[in-house]
Amino acid sequence: MDKELTVLFIGDIIGQPGIRAIVSMLPNLKRGYNPDLIVINGENAADGFGITPEIADSLFAAGADIITTGNHVWQQREIIPYMKDHPTLLRPANYPPGAPGTGAVIVEKHGVRFAVLNLQGRMRMWPIDCPFRKARDLIKKIEGKADIVLIDMHAEAPEEKEALAFDLDGRISALVGTHTHIQTADERILPRGTAYISDLGATGPRNSIIGFDPETGIRRSLTQLPLKSEVAQTPAVVHGVVLGLDGETRRARWIRRIKEQSLV
Amino acid sequence: MDKELTVLFIGDIIGQPGIRAIVSMLPNLKRGYNPDLIVINGENAADGFGITPEIADSLFAAGADIITTGNHVWQQREIIPYMKDHPTLLRPANYPPGAPGTGAVIVEKHGVRFAVLNLQGRMRMWPIDCPFRKARDLIKKIEGKADIVLIDMHAEAPEEKEALAFDLDGRISALVGTHTHIQTADERILPRGTAYISDLGATGPRNSIIGFDPETGIRRSLTQLPLKSEVAQTPAVVHGVVLGLDGETRRARWIRRIKEQSLV
Amino acid sequence: MDKELTVLFIGDIIGQPGIRAIVSMLPNLKRGYNPDLIVINGENAADGFGITPEIADSLFAAGADIITTGNHVWQQREIIPYMKDHPTLLRPANYPPGAPGTGAVIVEKHGVRFAVLNLQGRMRMWPIDCPFRKARDLIKKIEGKADIVLIDMHAEAPEEKEALAFDLDGRISALVGTHTHIQTADERILPRGTAYISDLGATGPRNSIIGFDPETGIRRSLTQLPLKSEVAQTPAVVHGVVLGLDGETRRARWIRRIKEQSLV
Amino acid sequence: MDKELTVLFIGDIIGQPGIRAIVSMLPNLKRGYNPDLIVINGENAADGFGITPEIADSLFAAGADIITTGNHVWQQREIIPYMKDHPTLLRPANYPPGAPGTGAVIVEKHGVRFAVLNLQGRMRMWPIDCPFRKARDLIKKIEGKADIVLIDMHAEAPEEKEALAFDLDGRISALVGTHTHIQTADERILPRGTAYISDLGATGPRNSIIGFDPETGIRRSLTQLPLKSEVAQTPAVVHGVVLGLDGETRRARWIRRIKEQSLV
Ligand SMILES: [Fe+2]
Ligand SMILES: [Fe+2]
Ligand SMILES: [Fe+2]
Ligand SMILES: [Fe+2]
Ligand SMILES: [Fe+2]
Ligand SMILES: [Fe+2]
Ligand SMILES: [Fe+2]
Ligand SMILES: [Fe+2]
Repeated sequence: MDKELTVLFIGDIIGQPGIRAIVSMLPNLKRGYNPDLIVINGENAADGFGITPEIADSLFAAGADIITTGNHVWQQREIIPYMKDHPTLLRPANYPPGAPGTGAVIVEKHGVRFAVLNLQGRMRMWPIDCPFRKARDLIKKIEGKADIVLIDMHAEAPEEKEALAFDLDGRISALVGTHTHIQTADERILPRGTAYISDLGATGPRNSIIGFDPETGIRRSLTQLPLKSEVAQTPAVVHGVVLGLDGETRRARWIRRIKEQSLV
Repeated sequence: MDKELTVLFIGDIIGQPGIRAIVSMLPNLKRGYNPDLIVINGENAADGFGITPEIADSLFAAGADIITTGNHVWQQREIIPYMKDHPTLLRPANYPPGAPGTGAVIVEKHGVRFAVLNLQGRMRMWPIDCPFRKARDLIKKIEGKADIVLIDMHAEAPEEKEALAFDLDGRISALVGTHTHIQTADERILPRGTAYISDLGATGPRNSIIGFDPETGIRRSLTQLPLKSEVAQTPAVVHGVVLGLDGETRRARWIRRIKEQSLV
Repeated sequence: MDKELTVLFIGDIIGQPGIRAIVSMLPNLKRGYNPDLIVINGENAADGFGITPEIADSLFAAGADIITTGNHVWQQREIIPYMKDHPTLLRPANYPPGAPGTGAVIVEKHGVRFAVLNLQGRMRMWPIDCPFRKARDLIKKIEGKADIVLIDMHAEAPEEKEALAFDLDGRISALVGTHTHIQTADERILPRGTAYISDLGATGPRNSIIGFDPETGIRRSLTQLPLKSEVAQTPAVVHGVVLGLDGETRRARWIRRIKEQSLV
Repeated sequence: MDKELTVLFIGDIIGQPGIRAIVSMLPNLKRGYNPDLIVINGENAADGFGITPEIADSLFAAGADIITTGNHVWQQREIIPYMKDHPTLLRPANYPPGAPGTGAVIVEKHGVRFAVLNLQGRMRMWPIDCPFRKARDLIKKIEGKADIVLIDMHAEAPEEKEALAFDLDGRISALVGTHTHIQTADERILPRGTAYISDLGATGPRNSIIGFDPETGIRRSLTQLPLKSEVAQTPAVVHGVVLGLDGETRRARWIRRIKEQSLV
């Protein structure tokens, strides 16, 4: 396992434009980066709110090894029974005991055991269980069972994502943030070797407000009425990162942001 | 006024490391970009919380034409009398009537009248006055009095910053976000010519949690005790953007992110 | 107008149990207190979320002179056109310009002109317009046009309700709070004559969690999943206050809490 | 143990007026109710923010068997070492492992072993550990070691307090809420025998905004500036409840609200 491992991590898929974009562009991305593992956050794939079994199937068929999610995962109830038979569709691990589904999985690809953990922040979000202790617990639990550990920390506050990354620096290969739908420009390797970015950004419509129709967003801001957001119907941009990991030391060698304009 | 105008916009200065970095690097940045206007957000300059008259003086002396701020501006009370005599130190304009200071100013540089507006978001922040209506009112009020209008929208939520930018697209030359302390990679020119970025990022210590000591941030996350943040004492990174504006049409031609490592 | 005026103010009607309770008990309450004016908060009448035209009609038919509401008012969209023709159905007045409906009304009963204002708080709620300035503006606007001014301040935070009441003390006859669904025991006459209570309490099912099914509330607390609340199907308690106002000075003489068990 | 046990539970002591009131009136309350146990919430005793060793000593000297607290407990740092030697001064039990102090204690009085648990809510508060699971764990842990279990649930949201009370109904003798500083009028015995009230109310200055100076509260509401609250300097009102518990079944027989005007 001395070669370099490559991981492709794609940010929140938003509605049909996001699905079309990732499905149509994944072949190109695979050719370009030849990733050993592909992880896609799908929490907004179902018209912006949650994910359905059909959409999960189509993302897996397109090449996703693992689908992570976030706070919106519960909005399409039919995904809940699907979780049982599909352990590679994750929901945040730090929901309390009793929540459906699971938040961590190990998959073996090309002889490498990749663990992916999905966590959710609490600052300015729901008060679920502590993501810091849950991450530490899970990492301890999978010790010896996985070669590479990767985290999707789905959170609003960059301070919470950075704190978790610093806390785990050197113990995991990468922590990437999702949820804000805006890609950040702070990708870097932390002092002890963990790759980090505060947010992958969304895979969703351009000329939108975090994926949604600008008209409604402006009107809601002006009136403070609870207007329902509609996914904007414009071609989408694929956002994410590619990670280069040292197969031996498990440290990250590099992290590169992706921002690819889809035409469909 | 048919030449290209260049504006340098620098994100939240954090403590002494941030001040040292911007003061030492501004000469270089001026040589490199020859900006017609320099705007610096100084809301975290006083050890992370607010700004003092001395610090404001030193930022002006270093070359800032205008200092914008945000929610932390009120934390050093001695800045309040200073605001009266220094109209180029702004606080968010949409604080209610009766708040000290002002949130908009017009300065003339090289024959061009630049208006800078400072606004603050409300999503997951204080419930101050509506930044959307305040922005529209101010823009109407300065019509004919300014050639170029620029906005620092100090806000947590990217959807609020994007909504305001879309609402004003074509009526102002640029809207830049501040407050999260993390630079975003979404800089672009909106359909009708307004330059946009969700967040400039902070001018503060590297290897920090949004500018502050990681140890405390991790411990606070784990314990949920109200531990006070201390500015990290490492060399800082200067974050911001440079804008190229068409002097005639007032539309943005380009927006370029800045991320400059300081050595001091 | 030297006689004592009596006002009956009923808290948030919750679902069918709340409607049944107030409709069946209002005749008794009228006999007991002989109120000159009856105001009912109806924001949760439609199965807990909003109000429909049919329900509004039935509350008016039962004796309500004015229906106030709150943050949930927008959830049944068919109420919006109804607002136009029914100015005695109020929504909070401090929604921004452009929101449907109105938040203040004057009705004449027995030769007395009663003004009722409906306002909504912002602490830990939506960032709508300032209820303090809106209240002051409205009071100024109706000066000379109303004999008695009453306010339903629909808000979460008692500090916000108390602050508004102290601010208006002596200028209005009463300010009553709604929204928490729990009646408070702090009814009193403020120093300059305004009657006050932090919350009227809900007119909703007993043995419930703020009107809703306890099982779901407990499970949601334990799992933090976004489970939908269902109105509990138990007989309801009518909560509110009766106010005795001096017809000459307009000051409140007394305020008495109501808590009446319904049998249906 | 077949006699009736009486417990006096006093709400948040606010500053010097609150301390003076409870110290001067406790002798009367003892004479009147002859309580077997006295519990006082002291989280705002130190000028509104936290509690000091001196104040804790004086509350114990006045007759408190147990002092509970809440979110403000950490604001006077000198109380932290004091917690070690004074296990009857509680902080909320559901702060994460590693927090100083303890959140549950058993004291024996007149041959009865009283357990008092202090918990804190999370809705619209800090995201600490789950109060529901913590309460269940603690109750299991003390089974057989205590005769009577009482809970101070320090929380903002009545729905969270009611949910916890319903969840524990029949397993504890009483759950009382604190934190809002406003006494609620919903005291009752739940179906399986647990006494309940959403909030005891504060023991603090009258003619105040939740204990603090009205002028500042109004000005802060109008300006949204972060003005510091000062405890109002008026005579205080003692708020709380007295509970009558069946010594045999441990069920609550009655709950009576207290509201006593102090003269000093
Ligand atoms: Fe998302
Ligand atoms: Fe999300
Ligand atoms: Fe800042
Ligand atoms: Fe800020
Ligand atoms: Fe309500
Ligand atoms: Fe409400
Ligand atoms: Fe509290
Ligand atoms: Fe308190």
